[in-house]
Amino acid sequence: MRTIEWQENGTVVTINQLKLPHETEFLKLRTCDEVAEAIKTMRIRGAPLLGAAAAYGLALTAYHSKAKDREALIRELEAAAEKLRKTRPTGVNLFWAVDRILRKAYTFKGDVHELAAMVVEEAKRIADEDVAANRAIGRHGAQLLENGDVVLTHCNAGALATVDYGTALGVIRAAVEQGKKIRVIATETRPKLQGARLTAYELKRDGIPVTLISDTMVGYVMYQRMVNKVIVGADRIVQDAVINKIGTYQIAVLAKEHSIPFYVAAPKSTFDLTRISAEVTIEERSPEEVLYVGKERIAPESVAVFNPAFDITPLKYVTAVICEDGILYKGDISSLSGTAEKP
Amino acid sequence: MRTIEWQENGTVVTINQLKLPHETEFLKLRTCDEVAEAIKTMRIRGAPLLGAAAAYGLALTAYHSKAKDREALIRELEAAAEKLRKTRPTGVNLFWAVDRILRKAYTFKGDVHELAAMVVEEAKRIADEDVAANRAIGRHGAQLLENGDVVLTHCNAGALATVDYGTALGVIRAAVEQGKKIRVIATETRPKLQGARLTAYELKRDGIPVTLISDTMVGYVMYQRMVNKVIVGADRIVQDAVINKIGTYQIAVLAKEHSIPFYVAAPKSTFDLTRISAEVTIEERSPEEVLYVGKERIAPESVAVFNPAFDITPLKYVTAVICEDGILYKGDISSLSGTAEKP
Repeated sequence: MRTIEWQENGTVVTINQLKLPHETEFLKLRTCDEVAEAIKTMRIRGAPLLGAAAAYGLALTAYHSKAKDREALIRELEAAAEKLRKTRPTGVNLFWAVDRILRKAYTFKGDVHELAAMVVEEAKRIADEDVAANRAIGRHGAQLLENGDVVLTHCNAGALATVDYGTALGVIRAAVEQGKKIRVIATETRPKLQGARLTAYELKRDGIPVTLISDTMVGYVMYQRMVNKVIVGADRIVQDAVINKIGTYQIAVLAKEHSIPFYVAAPKSTFDLTRISAEVTIEERSPEEVLYVGKERIAPESVAVFNPAFDITPLKYVTAVICEDGILYKGDISSLSGTAEKP
Repeated sequence: MRTIEWQENGTVVTINQLKLPHETEFLKLRTCDEVAEAIKTMRIRGAPLLGAAAAYGLALTAYHSKAKDREALIRELEAAAEKLRKTRPTGVNLFWAVDRILRKAYTFKGDVHELAAMVVEEAKRIADEDVAANRAIGRHGAQLLENGDVVLTHCNAGALATVDYGTALGVIRAAVEQGKKIRVIATETRPKLQGARLTAYELKRDGIPVTLISDTMVGYVMYQRMVNKVIVGADRIVQDAVINKIGTYQIAVLAKEHSIPFYVAAPKSTFDLTRISAEVTIEERSPEEVLYVGKERIAPESVAVFNPAFDITPLKYVTAVICEDGILYKGDISSLSGTAEKP
């Protein structure tokens, strides 16, 4: 199944990502508040998936609304949008999806029932487009992988981070579907361990060979030439940088030091090329995420913690960005953002 | 108390480092086999401490020996030494301590009882010398720290990694004793979490401000200029590199990229300047260390794991090595090892 699905009784079904890999628990969400809460607690996570989830949050609002007229429903959608926007500040897909639906609602000609139906359809379209984008990213990115490659990936940019197929893992899947032998090294990705819990799980399930390492081991596997490419996802791509899961930046620096290509795979819904990295809020999450692994506390009482959830990788460390339109090199991103130097 | 102590009834008392910080359990070891087992399981860890522990292992053999003559005791010491040498291959202090005692035993003039007494005394001397070396390292290294510095450290190179005071943390302690305000950022240091469990514990206990981060956050704290020096310990310093806890190398690369000085603090018992890094065995430990945190399993069943316990940091990334004789820059290490280029 897809990671997130709309059911015709006005329910959104998704996998509780905090319970994986030990338990496959499905969440049935019936309100936008429930969606927002699932996003905040990271039961739903992954930038492209957050776009689809936010869209479905608005769809739930529209579907269950008792609003009598178009304007009342729009006010409800705006309130729901505001709640969604307050969940997590760094990834841009959520904002993009919310804005896309609201913009369409503002100019929509039709009554309240037709508007509600349009919002549901648009949310489904966003989800469908994400799957198509991932397949296209896979197709383009697979050209960059050769038979025998060992690819390091960080966090989870797989089917679980998207509606289906995945961005970074989509590229690997597409290369494997072409018959190339690819092995993957997955970093565990502290503090939330998405690499250990989700990436290792997805790849095992698909029969793609994967070796798990601690985050401390990235430098050593590069030093020992055990890896020859890096592919990660992104939470927001701005004019000057890729913003992604904490730990991405240091992997990019290490890749450059070892002359290993560093690729970012992300749909265009992740692009935010009117902004620069300094304008983006880097979410800081609870100290408990660092202090505990499950029920195990790993540090003494009352120790201070710094827990940024994302970091900033300047474009100079990025070999290319793979999106649904193709492979973008640095100059391409600059020209998309209108910051290319005049010849 | 010291991390390891000899008791006159022929017992070695040490802290079980696997139980910290939640529980302070003292181990009473009465045989060299018990010492070897405690080293293998990392109840005792830290390169300088392993030197003292191995010496005390031989002291236990000598003290409790029923050997009738000098030659029989030497054979028992050789067998004990062999067991100790097989515990952990990478850190050199253990080998150094064992060799030092055996060498002294071979040339010792005296009967079996005098030889046994000499071995016990030599082990105590090794422990005492480690404390003195750490104090001297602290004195020299403190010159490199300025009031207001924020120092990042990795793993635990503190009192718990040594007989007392610590190497990297000894430098920080000495600077604080001089009245300098120093703050520390400690990496948790997966997989065994010595930074979270031991370094955070030691520094909290001493009232030195410490902030814990996941290993993924090193690049970001440097990018955000939240740290201006790095100090780590070492398990073996060879002609071309510093070998230390896994994760050290990538921190050194990141420090260089951000023009942050990267210091290594280690006693001369860690120096092995007749060898190069390629000759040193990098210990690989059990997959379970990566797959579990305490009782929490973090990854799906039957996933492959790579778990090197140490990595190799070429000297080009090391600003200086601080030992009991002073501060050694790259040229100094080359001349100590006889590899300096002729002018």
